[in-house]
Amino acid sequence: MMNTPLLLKNVLHNGSTVSIRIRNGIYETIAPHLTHCDGEEVFDCGGRLAILPAFYNTHTHAAMSLLRGYADDYPLFQWLTEYVWPLEQHLQPDDVYQGTRLAILEMIRTGTVFFNDMYWFQEGAVRAVEEMGIRAMIGMLHLKNADAAGVHNDYLKQNRKNFSHRVQVCHAPHSIYTLDTEHLRQIAEQVDDDGMLIHIHLAETKKEFEDCLNEHNMTPARYLDSMGLLRKNTLLAHAIYLNDEDIKLIKERGCVPAHIPASNMKLASGRFPMERYLRAGCPVALGTDSACSNNNLSMLEEMKLAALLAKLGTENPECCPAHTVYDMATVNGAAAFGLHAGVIAEGYLADGILIRTDVPAMIPTYHLHSNLVYAAEPSCIDSVICDGKFLMKHGVIEGEQEILAAANESAHKLVERVRK
Amino acid sequence: MMNTPLLLKNVLHNGSTVSIRIRNGIYETIAPHLTHCDGEEVFDCGGRLAILPAFYNTHTHAAMSLLRGYADDYPLFQWLTEYVWPLEQHLQPDDVYQGTRLAILEMIRTGTVFFNDMYWFQEGAVRAVEEMGIRAMIGMLHLKNADAAGVHNDYLKQNRKNFSHRVQVCHAPHSIYTLDTEHLRQIAEQVDDDGMLIHIHLAETKKEFEDCLNEHNMTPARYLDSMGLLRKNTLLAHAIYLNDEDIKLIKERGCVPAHIPASNMKLASGRFPMERYLRAGCPVALGTDSACSNNNLSMLEEMKLAALLAKLGTENPECCPAHTVYDMATVNGAAAFGLHAGVIAEGYLADGILIRTDVPAMIPTYHLHSNLVYAAEPSCIDSVICDGKFLMKHGVIEGEQEILAAANESAHKLVERVRK
Repeated sequence: MMNTPLLLKNVLHNGSTVSIRIRNGIYETIAPHLTHCDGEEVFDCGGRLAILPAFYNTHTHAAMSLLRGYADDYPLFQWLTEYVWPLEQHLQPDDVYQGTRLAILEMIRTGTVFFNDMYWFQEGAVRAVEEMGIRAMIGMLHLKNADAAGVHNDYLKQNRKNFSHRVQVCHAPHSIYTLDTEHLRQIAEQVDDDGMLIHIHLAETKKEFEDCLNEHNMTPARYLDSMGLLRKNTLLAHAIYLNDEDIKLIKERGCVPAHIPASNMKLASGRFPMERYLRAGCPVALGTDSACSNNNLSMLEEMKLAALLAKLGTENPECCPAHTVYDMATVNGAAAFGLHAGVIAEGYLADGILIRTDVPAMIPTYHLHSNLVYAAEPSCIDSVICDGKFLMKHGVIEGEQEILAAANESAHKLVERVRK
Repeated sequence: MMNTPLLLKNVLHNGSTVSIRIRNGIYETIAPHLTHCDGEEVFDCGGRLAILPAFYNTHTHAAMSLLRGYADDYPLFQWLTEYVWPLEQHLQPDDVYQGTRLAILEMIRTGTVFFNDMYWFQEGAVRAVEEMGIRAMIGMLHLKNADAAGVHNDYLKQNRKNFSHRVQVCHAPHSIYTLDTEHLRQIAEQVDDDGMLIHIHLAETKKEFEDCLNEHNMTPARYLDSMGLLRKNTLLAHAIYLNDEDIKLIKERGCVPAHIPASNMKLASGRFPMERYLRAGCPVALGTDSACSNNNLSMLEEMKLAALLAKLGTENPECCPAHTVYDMATVNGAAAFGLHAGVIAEGYLADGILIRTDVPAMIPTYHLHSNLVYAAEPSCIDSVICDGKFLMKHGVIEGEQEILAAANESAHKLVERVRK
């Protein structure tokens, strides 16, 4: 099925007002003036909307939006064992569908067009992604003693050929502390076979780092490499406790460290060594983690947090300037998943956000990227385009109120089941 | 002149649906049901809007919103000497009026009803505050070699009796490093005489701390106290480099440390020692600083940053929970300026925000304060009430587009004057 071609008129781009033709999900032509073709949808930005790359959220557990604010301000272990895990025992497949729809709503409103997901009951996540038009990487979850996960992974394996081009599937071993060596080796063998990408939590806490040293006499990064799991584009979520040798190693292997600033701060996990990754030339990406440890899915916030945290942590206000962190949230995230996207230029995937220039946070506009990173809030985003189609048009997302009501109901029923 | 009485119907408050009568700028009655009186404006929240305290921004330079994004990612000294100060040489009185209006717009949209301002050409700031209905403390700026400041201070002194009750005036000595000892002593004498509050930058950088030790053989806090400037409700902006003795001292004197997290991170100034203030029982308040070092004026963001930074810095996710940081942004800030406000209860000043419960960030709502602190973004705020009147009603602020256009024009002309 072909998309209807789309002509964006009078859109601000790199300081000029231009027209942009989108066809088959690609930015086909960008020029000062383009003439409208038959059968083409025309969207006039009136010289007041600026186009910029949309965001690629490289680490989340989308359906956990149902747990937003359920248990805040607790230590990680207490948070998991007393709140999150007991509640997750009561999750039903429809909860994951409803929670993922809620998460996708939040992501669209905040300019995100892709997310890399690690959760279970993945049928629900795939259904939500297919319906709502966003892109996603859905992980096959690998967890110790979780045979149930196998059923869902089988579903993904068997059906992925029927998914739209917007939905990819990868291996998502949870972490080195929830899987044993033998299991991790088996996953590496599967990857040898199917060539899929890998998404894993790595070196999120000091405890993980120290336990790994004690148990395996290797750092977490080195341990993962010893099993053949550090590969091109392996996505390492958090990646806080890596020494310089580890960083050199993951750079050589072509892995992508995903910085998750809000969650790292909220759970007091530690500070991502941004300056060392930048020095090593590693292509850092950004992610939000779930709404249960953040508690929203706004990449706008993650960009600002990433920049501010790097400056404070290095005592250097020049570290991680606006354009660098904008690249992390866009082109670096897209590249990590093999998407030719994150840049508004001819030949790239037609993903983008249209920014209002008539709102307080955007006035004045000396530097557009600075305003986006340091000043913007979600309502600065007027419209969101993914795969050449509008996911949000002038602030309106189709079906929003129904999605919110259904997610709210799911959350309430879930908590009732827990309390019974 | 009396306000029109206002009846809020079907508003969510502490988990119940109630009616609230506001008369003469005060929350007069809060009850399950109230009958409409003649001549009273009725605002029906339909059981979908929750009322919460509005925010009190205890440190800003409002008119600097005209410089938003003008110079980011530079070290403090270069930022001031090469960008901010040269541009400020070209400021004209109308710029301050326009910049302050822009700042007030941002503050209203983000739920703020009071700001503590330190800038010059204060006539413009007063005019903006009077017109737009917000509350403010306007500082008489004291700066070395800035005789020009005297003219504006004289204006404030002579006219303050004619200002509305929403506008207060205080002494605002800039800092210990921009004023000499003699000048600071004179200000203390003026305060003996006029009894005004004091607003000063204190111990923002390690350099300020070390220079003070070298020059005066005292910490900045101790030095300020030696001149009689640590008094009840003296507002100490930043207050990062204080040792435990200093904190004990300012607690005894009744001073209020204002935490300014975004600016401290962006300029890499240092980390506010939140845990030590909390241990000492100091009533910490929050502020945004100007949009030139932030780059917005959202107290929602400052709450989240304050909580996250405290958790990461202390390696303790229990530090600074949501309700604590919400108190800092509301009742602590109000109390610092003698306002009986920041609490939604009978007899308090009728300031408040009405929160939408039908937006992604507020779904689900397990804990309202958690959602506000960790998940909310400005568009969750439907309406803002200050002094018993609506500053924003269902997202609409009167005159917004004219204010934005005028501020944009001011900013452009200012930059043109600098470039000439």
